[in-house]
Amino acid sequence: MAKGAITYKDAGVDIDANTVWVDRIRREMTSTFDARVWRNHGGFAGLFHLDHAERLFRKEYRNPSLVGCADGVGTKVLLAVEADRLDTIGIDLVAMNVNDLITCGAEPLFFLDYLAVHKLDPDRLLRVIEGIAEGCRQARCSLLGGETSEMPDLYRKGHIDLAGFAVGVVESKRAIPGRRTSAGDVLVGLPSSGVHSNGFSLVRKLLKRERVALHQSMPGSGVAVIDALLAPTRIYVESVLATLKHYRRKRVVTGMAHITGGGLPENVSRLLPCDCDARIDRTSWTPPAVFAFLQKLGVDRREMYRVFNMGVGYVLAVRPAFVGGVMRRLRGCGEDPLVIGQIVRGTGTVKLRQGGGPQITEAEPS
Amino acid sequence: MAKGAITYKDAGVDIDANTVWVDRIRREMTSTFDARVWRNHGGFAGLFHLDHAERLFRKEYRNPSLVGCADGVGTKVLLAVEADRLDTIGIDLVAMNVNDLITCGAEPLFFLDYLAVHKLDPDRLLRVIEGIAEGCRQARCSLLGGETSEMPDLYRKGHIDLAGFAVGVVESKRAIPGRRTSAGDVLVGLPSSGVHSNGFSLVRKLLKRERVALHQSMPGSGVAVIDALLAPTRIYVESVLATLKHYRRKRVVTGMAHITGGGLPENVSRLLPCDCDARIDRTSWTPPAVFAFLQKLGVDRREMYRVFNMGVGYVLAVRPAFVGGVMRRLRGCGEDPLVIGQIVRGTGTVKLRQGGGPQITEAEPS
Repeated sequence: MAKGAITYKDAGVDIDANTVWVDRIRREMTSTFDARVWRNHGGFAGLFHLDHAERLFRKEYRNPSLVGCADGVGTKVLLAVEADRLDTIGIDLVAMNVNDLITCGAEPLFFLDYLAVHKLDPDRLLRVIEGIAEGCRQARCSLLGGETSEMPDLYRKGHIDLAGFAVGVVESKRAIPGRRTSAGDVLVGLPSSGVHSNGFSLVRKLLKRERVALHQSMPGSGVAVIDALLAPTRIYVESVLATLKHYRRKRVVTGMAHITGGGLPENVSRLLPCDCDARIDRTSWTPPAVFAFLQKLGVDRREMYRVFNMGVGYVLAVRPAFVGGVMRRLRGCGEDPLVIGQIVRGTGTVKLRQGGGPQITEAEPS
Repeated sequence: MAKGAITYKDAGVDIDANTVWVDRIRREMTSTFDARVWRNHGGFAGLFHLDHAERLFRKEYRNPSLVGCADGVGTKVLLAVEADRLDTIGIDLVAMNVNDLITCGAEPLFFLDYLAVHKLDPDRLLRVIEGIAEGCRQARCSLLGGETSEMPDLYRKGHIDLAGFAVGVVESKRAIPGRRTSAGDVLVGLPSSGVHSNGFSLVRKLLKRERVALHQSMPGSGVAVIDALLAPTRIYVESVLATLKHYRRKRVVTGMAHITGGGLPENVSRLLPCDCDARIDRTSWTPPAVFAFLQKLGVDRREMYRVFNMGVGYVLAVRPAFVGGVMRRLRGCGEDPLVIGQIVRGTGTVKLRQGGGPQITEAEPS
């Protein structure tokens, strides 16, 4: 060997450790596998059989469209790293993707992850993968594959980044397109579990500036700051798809929004044709305590609604005659749906108001 | 507004700039769109129609499997950032994914990207997206969506990371499974364009230690070091799929390997059942000058083959009777294929040797 020769391992990348790692995550992956995943394929890519042997797919889907989306968890991962609480960030990752996927009515099929790290530290990183697998089980999708990349020069010591990618399928004519709500449709909100996975650059800046101890309780609640902030993003797949399935022939749900970066104003605006507004009554629900806590640390109320979900993680626009039925179905799936507003004639904007109007009250389910 | 209140923008995330950015990349995305992509969907996820109106898909695929993979470009992106040469790193990203995808015989359908940055700098980052779109056009897949994430606390100033996800489809019974080569199969290599997108942590460590100026020419060649290193990863989709298509009924290609991290030994080993070895004659091709240059900077020869592709970016295992035909087809697609070795009875290991054997010579196409 040449004098002074260096190896890939010297440069911070250990191929052998990577091979061991791949074997360890295999068990987590298989815990999520649907019967349609090809097992023991041993190749460079993951394979997912569209049809069962029983031809169920052909029976259910006459003219299918695939649906794909990509998302990360933002800097929530840095807070998880700081608190050494990596067990649920993988749930957040799956949630961010599958909640986007179902907005068009798609059924999730599979998920792939990208995990970038400073150093491949299997015991620590396995917790991330376990969370991803848990998220996949909740979303009923198979963890088909992924990539772990060790990049000591790109990530600081201890740091990781996470990205995910979900693929689903929807019968084309049943797909819920964007911007097809119409005046009179009622906005039904599903509660979030807290901040979910957006706005964490702001959260972390506030915590630092105000020198908040992560393990202290939030004022007026017995919940530690870190527990409230890291509460995993809710996965709405099961309740939303079960509700849609009930209304297979009628178009009852005219649009759905996953409330992520940009909050209710930006995300609900994606449901609006240019001649409609969404009027949301922000007194129709009570934001979880974590939002009052963050606001008091020093954020303007309007900015709070522009950055955070404020307690509403997912919104369905429902034709008025079906609001009662949809809400009963959602409750039957364990959800706690709330009427939060309505679509009215307008110019394509979302208006957050204090207090609603007779229209919203009328639309309450009987 | 509360005194001392801070905004999301103060925390380094500008939602308005992000909206402008999304509009700018839209044009790049549409340049890659297949007729099957739903245009102007305007939703939270991208939709891809499996079937054409003409029912071509149903005609071609009776029992399809979807194929998914995820990959990044490693720290090649840091070298691209350092040299301010971001125009082709997106091609690398697509290549790393689609070359994995086609190893099982799959046709790429769509691609999604994840772009993580310190700061959303549209003019600079648009070059990355243009590269991704160029890669997608080369791979004939649609850039269906993606996510750009601004994370000032996770990425250093100027730094970016890239991950990608590709989805394809293959007729299940024609899918090429792993580890199904058998003794006698001939290994046909397709040239790489250089280092491709693996081993850059080692490359960068060598450059730094030996204080190599990026714009100097490599000894014995007129090519600048940076040009040789950043040469985009070749995309083998068109030539490989055209060749496979020709042999629709016979199983002529028994396995394929994309040569990435781990080099020929690790990647070709994925083709081997436990009772076979791969014998590769490393004198059967001439590695591009960039590898001799890197080796001289201080890497052991064996390590070179364990980290880099050494000039062979993709390997097909071909049944001996069809080697001539397969090579002619590949040449017809503009490839320069070379017989580099053979599958022999053994124990599942890859043996790189100097000089081949009569078996390999016999297998040369007539």
